[in-house]
Amino acid sequence: MEFSSKLLENAVNEMSQLPGVGKRTALRLVLHLLRQPTTQTLDFANALSTMRTEIKFCKSCHNISDTDMCEICANPNRIEDVVCVVEDIRDVMAIENTSSFKGLYHVLGGKISPMDGIGPNELNIQSLVEKVKQGVVKELIFALGSTMEGDTTNFYIYKQIQDYDVKTSTIARGISVGNELEYTDEVTLGRSIINRIPFEASLKS
Amino acid sequence: MEFSSKLLENAVNEMSQLPGVGKRTALRLVLHLLRQPTTQTLDFANALSTMRTEIKFCKSCHNISDTDMCEICANPNRIEDVVCVVEDIRDVMAIENTSSFKGLYHVLGGKISPMDGIGPNELNIQSLVEKVKQGVVKELIFALGSTMEGDTTNFYIYKQIQDYDVKTSTIARGISVGNELEYTDEVTLGRSIINRIPFEASLKS
Ligand SMILES: [Zn+2]
Ligand SMILES: [Zn+2]
Repeated sequence: MEFSSKLLENAVNEMSQLPGVGKRTALRLVLHLLRQPTTQTLDFANALSTMRTEIKFCKSCHNISDTDMCEICANPNRIEDVVCVVEDIRDVMAIENTSSFKGLYHVLGGKISPMDGIGPNELNIQSLVEKVKQGVVKELIFALGSTMEGDTTNFYIYKQIQDYDVKTSTIARGISVGNELEYTDEVTLGRSIINRIPFEASLKS
Repeated sequence: MEFSSKLLENAVNEMSQLPGVGKRTALRLVLHLLRQPTTQTLDFANALSTMRTEIKFCKSCHNISDTDMCEICANPNRIEDVVCVVEDIRDVMAIENTSSFKGLYHVLGGKISPMDGIGPNELNIQSLVEKVKQGVVKELIFALGSTMEGDTTNFYIYKQIQDYDVKTSTIARGISVGNELEYTDEVTLGRSIINRIPFEASLKS
């Protein structure tokens, strides 16, 4: 693509770095912004840069939070020795929507995926293992979506903590095999948490 | 959607104002940015706001340009009395790619579309009519894509200039009816310009 304007070209190139956005789509989006009031673009740009530079993560569960300790971890009514292990904030939001879980979360920040260069050290796994070693967790619920990466991650964590006194379970496979958690409907997701099964049992099925 | 962070919520809301981007997609894109280096988001935000506040339009053809007069209008080798009327910069880029047109452009900035609240006054039509009245245009080529809005816009401009000494043509309907110009392949588009027909004739077909 040859552009008549460096400013335009630059904006299109940056926009097309978003996943799933090609050059042509990026140009369409940028031209849309040019037809909207200037304030819309400035508000958008400002929201992105403020978010990126000021966002915080809960010191305990690693979920995105505007405070040091997120609302869930800080809530005295949550059951603090049952911890649900999830990939990212979308899964926390999806499970909270079901109102079926009263424990805490641990947000890994992704799944182990050698193809994408994501190993255990890129994820919040060590802090989870520490929680288990310190005996503050009685039950770990793996809720990572039933993909190969999810299974690999579950198993990796399981190996690290299996010698400690902690019950492990995975959410019931009501969620379709190969599907991401966030696309599961609320009822199915809620039920799959209630029907969770011991992790060892899940390995045999 | 309930967010655990106002910063995140704000970024998602702004992102979801882009056409075709729902809340869920916006959240996915924003989480992607959070996993990339901070500089990527800052460069992106900066490219957008700089583009929006500093972009210029060619004083003659209204195409996006970093200079007062765009490269095409400023090129002495272009035939200046043949003017191709297009919707936006994407059409200029598509036609330039065919290397089949040596005249100048006039960029309307959209098409007449009462449904979207776009009337003739929202478009760069008056300056085109002035060019014709001043006698600097010998031929106008309508190249608006064969949609209803394109036809309406062609006809509106035609009525304004039909009493002046100017030849009008539309690009040949090799382009599929109902299709936007930018999705037409180069060969078809190039041929449709060479095979352009008088505008009056196009009304009868
Ligand atoms: Zn937390
Ligand atoms: Zn120009």
